[in-house]
Amino acid sequence: MSNRNMEGKRQAVLDQADELEQLLAKVTPRVVEYIRQNADVDGSKVVEYVPPEELKSKMGIELPEEGTGTDEIVERIDRVLKYSVRTGHPRFLDKLYAGSDPVGQVSEFLTAVVNTNVYTYAVAPVFTLMELEVLRKVAAVVGFDDATMEGMLVPGGSFANFVAMVAARHHAFPHVRMDGWKPDDKPIAFCPEQAHYSLKRAAMMVGIGMNGIVGVKCDRKGRMIVSELDAALEKAVAEGKKPFFVSTSAGSTVMGGFDPFVEIRQVCDKYNVWMHVDAAWGIASKFTPRMEQTTAGLELADSCTWDGHKSLGMPIFAAAVMTQKHQGLFHAANSSSADYLFHSHEQVSYDLGDMTLQCGRRADSIKMWFAWLRHGTQGFRDRIEKALDIVDYMVARIKADPRFKLVEDPMYTNVCFWYLPPSLRDTEDLTSVYPKLGTVTSTLCRRMQEAGTMLVNINPLGDHGLPHFFRLIINNTTVTTGDMDFVLEEMDRLGSSL
Amino acid sequence: MSNRNMEGKRQAVLDQADELEQLLAKVTPRVVEYIRQNADVDGSKVVEYVPPEELKSKMGIELPEEGTGTDEIVERIDRVLKYSVRTGHPRFLDKLYAGSDPVGQVSEFLTAVVNTNVYTYAVAPVFTLMELEVLRKVAAVVGFDDATMEGMLVPGGSFANFVAMVAARHHAFPHVRMDGWKPDDKPIAFCPEQAHYSLKRAAMMVGIGMNGIVGVKCDRKGRMIVSELDAALEKAVAEGKKPFFVSTSAGSTVMGGFDPFVEIRQVCDKYNVWMHVDAAWGIASKFTPRMEQTTAGLELADSCTWDGHKSLGMPIFAAAVMTQKHQGLFHAANSSSADYLFHSHEQVSYDLGDMTLQCGRRADSIKMWFAWLRHGTQGFRDRIEKALDIVDYMVARIKADPRFKLVEDPMYTNVCFWYLPPSLRDTEDLTSVYPKLGTVTSTLCRRMQEAGTMLVNINPLGDHGLPHFFRLIINNTTVTTGDMDFVLEEMDRLGSSL
Repeated sequence: MSNRNMEGKRQAVLDQADELEQLLAKVTPRVVEYIRQNADVDGSKVVEYVPPEELKSKMGIELPEEGTGTDEIVERIDRVLKYSVRTGHPRFLDKLYAGSDPVGQVSEFLTAVVNTNVYTYAVAPVFTLMELEVLRKVAAVVGFDDATMEGMLVPGGSFANFVAMVAARHHAFPHVRMDGWKPDDKPIAFCPEQAHYSLKRAAMMVGIGMNGIVGVKCDRKGRMIVSELDAALEKAVAEGKKPFFVSTSAGSTVMGGFDPFVEIRQVCDKYNVWMHVDAAWGIASKFTPRMEQTTAGLELADSCTWDGHKSLGMPIFAAAVMTQKHQGLFHAANSSSADYLFHSHEQVSYDLGDMTLQCGRRADSIKMWFAWLRHGTQGFRDRIEKALDIVDYMVARIKADPRFKLVEDPMYTNVCFWYLPPSLRDTEDLTSVYPKLGTVTSTLCRRMQEAGTMLVNINPLGDHGLPHFFRLIINNTTVTTGDMDFVLEEMDRLGSSL
Repeated sequence: MSNRNMEGKRQAVLDQADELEQLLAKVTPRVVEYIRQNADVDGSKVVEYVPPEELKSKMGIELPEEGTGTDEIVERIDRVLKYSVRTGHPRFLDKLYAGSDPVGQVSEFLTAVVNTNVYTYAVAPVFTLMELEVLRKVAAVVGFDDATMEGMLVPGGSFANFVAMVAARHHAFPHVRMDGWKPDDKPIAFCPEQAHYSLKRAAMMVGIGMNGIVGVKCDRKGRMIVSELDAALEKAVAEGKKPFFVSTSAGSTVMGGFDPFVEIRQVCDKYNVWMHVDAAWGIASKFTPRMEQTTAGLELADSCTWDGHKSLGMPIFAAAVMTQKHQGLFHAANSSSADYLFHSHEQVSYDLGDMTLQCGRRADSIKMWFAWLRHGTQGFRDRIEKALDIVDYMVARIKADPRFKLVEDPMYTNVCFWYLPPSLRDTEDLTSVYPKLGTVTSTLCRRMQEAGTMLVNINPLGDHGLPHFFRLIINNTTVTTGDMDFVLEEMDRLGSSL
């Protein structure tokens, strides 16, 4: 190391290095032990629930005028670990994400250290290449045409759906970019009634309003009914409206349903409408041939939403949105440069920043690239197949057990079922006790949170008049069939008095 | 630890803990040494520039079918550090962010380990409280009324500006949320001509188009001219349009200009228009009384954008957007629930997820809360005051040196100047050699990138017909006056032949 400039005045840099070294020396063993505790599934709770006012005081949440030392930081990290929900615990079965892999955790640390904004190659050479490579791999998994594909990493699936709708809007109504909506436009979009709510929010944001997107009826498995879509499109056209966007689901939020993509593509072609797939949740299914029939035709879409933080162990966020057959469209739809600056998109651009609403972009490519390097495509395939095995086990268990009732045979890793307390177990026609059944689900869910031994989400299915049921998600490589047994027995323990 | 369930089947969890431990044991000393190298300002380059195709091969960018071991991961991390731009280097003076603090780096690691989505208190109790506390502190710094303030953390300043525009849209045109734009609406928005381009993109996204936002003339310091705004509003109203949003800048992107907020508030009141402040870049100025006159009236705005990752050493992203006097509006503008579910916002809600376009939200509160705990409000104040001291030094140096010419006296930490090679040094009227001056700037910038000894951005000021100049940003606590001396001499070394 050169001695120039090293006398005193560079102390600030050296202090930073020392502080990081000290912090990691103390934090690393704590975090490793914290993760190790997840192995003690019965000894460590998923959550130690504390109500807001009490938790404020336990955390010492108020921020100071004068800063504190690193020891105090470490002590507060202990409190964070103590009072947070253990999403990496094998019995956190609540959400469409769970825990994260070591390679992702270290990647996020690295992302913070290099702290680069990914807008141009000049300032982010490595991460630009990583992003393009990740997108290329994602496109291959989706089945998009590599030669006409364009994609970008975005902060989450909702944002991705929004970007896709903006792209479709630009495709159908290119004047909106400069001049806004015109009275003659009469735009209309479509999504499954069971679509993720981000589709409605996207419609709200782009200026067509929530009434500008039509919810199309689904079956109980969460699949959009194609004839209903056809009828809805026909009606809209008859009313003089211009359909520009049809969203479909690969893995609907509640039921985990996959739409019949091949048939929907035919309907979209009939009306010349953009077809989008919200595969934020279900995209991991494309890694395995076991889901081939279910996902057939997904690759025929114009655009696709992709969340690596949902089923692949990547930390939040690891999301992408992509189009095919519309290369250059993300640039055209989002660029604020004058049109004359936008040239036909003949080769891959290495400056990614002009394709998105965002200016600064976090280098999420780091965690995605490293996760793929660590596990390989094969590792992701194993991961999803293991989850599907556990789903099969759980479904068989539920079907064989009179204390439980499956809502529908699952298409994916959402296992939706009711718990039947003794008071409801002999009811012939469950529809007659739906209100009671909904109350049982909600009450048992609250007891579960208080007990903290496991977390499982609950949902109704409004469009079919179904009361609240449990939606258990298999999304963590450390979940075992033993955990499934535990869930059923623990539900009975907490709920049998209902 | 309980022995139940520990026989074999929990091995997956223990393997994760072991892998993390091994990775950190190898990565930590590398990262600490990497940061230490920044102290050797002459020995370590800011960037080792490699063109894309060559870098692909050096990085081994292609992702595999079969995964690799952790040793391979560590080896690739070495390559990432080697070929990335050193944003933490004291001579990375290029962007509105630079490096990050140790406490932020460790916080990002922690964020990945807990891997929580912040939408409800039930699943994110600690991070919900952290977010509310950070927002409370931010509001206090901005000067917003705590009692009528509402805010949220978002992924970046562009997103924040977009959210603010959507809120203003909902305030003026509440029907858009459900029914989209109507022909009679005739919405129009305003921003400084030198505003960040995200304002134009936001206009594009919300469906009024880029022509739906009027650029108002600025002076050369980057300040919007109030009489021009008044005239533009008057003209719009005379044409039957409905102004709903005026954006202002606290720290414009190029010049670092601060708009005259008090006068603009008066004009906004005259026309009953929402006033927004894009303080993404300039918000740190509110920490110091030295900027009191410059920032006067900022706190009178209806909404404000805030980036902690710009001047406060927090890793990307640490951004917020807030309103005052419109409590409940973020919920109303963004919620996709039926209207009847939205009640008046009488107490702080602990479920933050319904206020934003996003569904999943990363726990950015962790790094913001820990940074504030570590440094305190006082630490942030010291940080910005130190930067202002260095700016004063640099400005005095440039003024005293015939090789350089200041574009304008800076209002903030953007130092904008030209380098004059010997061939231009005796020119009386620089306007006569503007084309040559622009070429000198661009050429010297390219030479600088190739040399890799420092990075300084270049910009033109189109609305004043100014050719490209250097925009040097002081944004890193480790920068010294010696670095400023170095920059000037290195520019002369690289540029004297021009």
